[in-house]
Amino acid sequence: MHKKEETAEHQHIVWKKESDELTMGCRIFDVRTTRMHSPEGRSHNYYYLDSPDWANVIAVTKDKDDQDCFVMVRQFRQGLQQITLEFPGGVVDDGEKPEAAARRELAEETGYQADRMLPAGTICPNPAIMNNWAYTFIAEDVHPAQSQDLDDNELVDVELWPVPYVIEHMGTGVFVNAIMMVALDWYRRYTNYA
Amino acid sequence: MHKKEETAEHQHIVWKKESDELTMGCRIFDVRTTRMHSPEGRSHNYYYLDSPDWANVIAVTKDKDDQDCFVMVRQFRQGLQQITLEFPGGVVDDGEKPEAAARRELAEETGYQADRMLPAGTICPNPAIMNNWAYTFIAEDVHPAQSQDLDDNELVDVELWPVPYVIEHMGTGVFVNAIMMVALDWYRRYTNYA
Repeated sequence: MHKKEETAEHQHIVWKKESDELTMGCRIFDVRTTRMHSPEGRSHNYYYLDSPDWANVIAVTKDKDDQDCFVMVRQFRQGLQQITLEFPGGVVDDGEKPEAAARRELAEETGYQADRMLPAGTICPNPAIMNNWAYTFIAEDVHPAQSQDLDDNELVDVELWPVPYVIEHMGTGVFVNAIMMVALDWYRRYTNYA
Repeated sequence: MHKKEETAEHQHIVWKKESDELTMGCRIFDVRTTRMHSPEGRSHNYYYLDSPDWANVIAVTKDKDDQDCFVMVRQFRQGLQQITLEFPGGVVDDGEKPEAAARRELAEETGYQADRMLPAGTICPNPAIMNNWAYTFIAEDVHPAQSQDLDDNELVDVELWPVPYVIEHMGTGVFVNAIMMVALDWYRRYTNYA
């Protein structure tokens, strides 16, 4: 049953679009409705979120004990209604490059800056109901440079967490954002960090 | 700046709920609007998706060349409008246990069954705008048992993919669903698979 990864031979499962319309604007995403038909002629409506891309950034710096630490943000997440600890990140603005967004979000959320941003990987947060991509960058030569510059609807604490601790605890406690688990995986793949 | 992982001391970033109401039903999720206020008295509306939990299952079986392979599903994803290759999974029904959902989805989408289902980990797909959890199970003693039993709005090919190939290519090509990258990470953590 091995198949080629490419999809040219898989047209029998490709649905075609009949229509696609705005259903409701929700500020940080739009709900849209698309009507799709299958190759054998079935037809269904699907809701999906038309969303801007996201960018996040893994920034490692030394703490006062000279340990390698991730620069992380603690905030109350309005969907889950819980506090999480995450890598800095946010929405890629219209016309902005993902790398620029990562750089901007790092500065605004944490006050840290980095001399270089390396692309580590890109993922689709939710192909079933979303159309956007999440970019992860690795910051190099990280240093504090300014104070936070948050939106009015944000409250964010900046914290340093040791790299091995976060790797061990990712997916538990306050480290439960799937996109951060992916970002950490990109980091470990990039750095060959076991 | 190290802080305890627990959140009792972090009340200064916890927003409190003023109201929470249904904005629009979208079949597989509801859009809701919540009004939240911060400890210092700011007040904002947030949209979020009230969504059922999800369950997915990593099932390894031998192919005809006796290689260890993941049982995977190829389908056209209506949000991204692209084909993806994913581990089997779907929505946890009302009143259903996540393990039962994983077992059911494995059978319905692929025709495979497993004697045991081991919980590998749980993640929040999107704490910013969703309130649900995604459970990953590892199937043991996997065997073909029945034919597919799909919903009318699904078209799914079943394919076997070698474990090392998927680990190497996760996050690229058709392997771009973030929740699957997380599920694979759970699998690697659980099995100590480098």
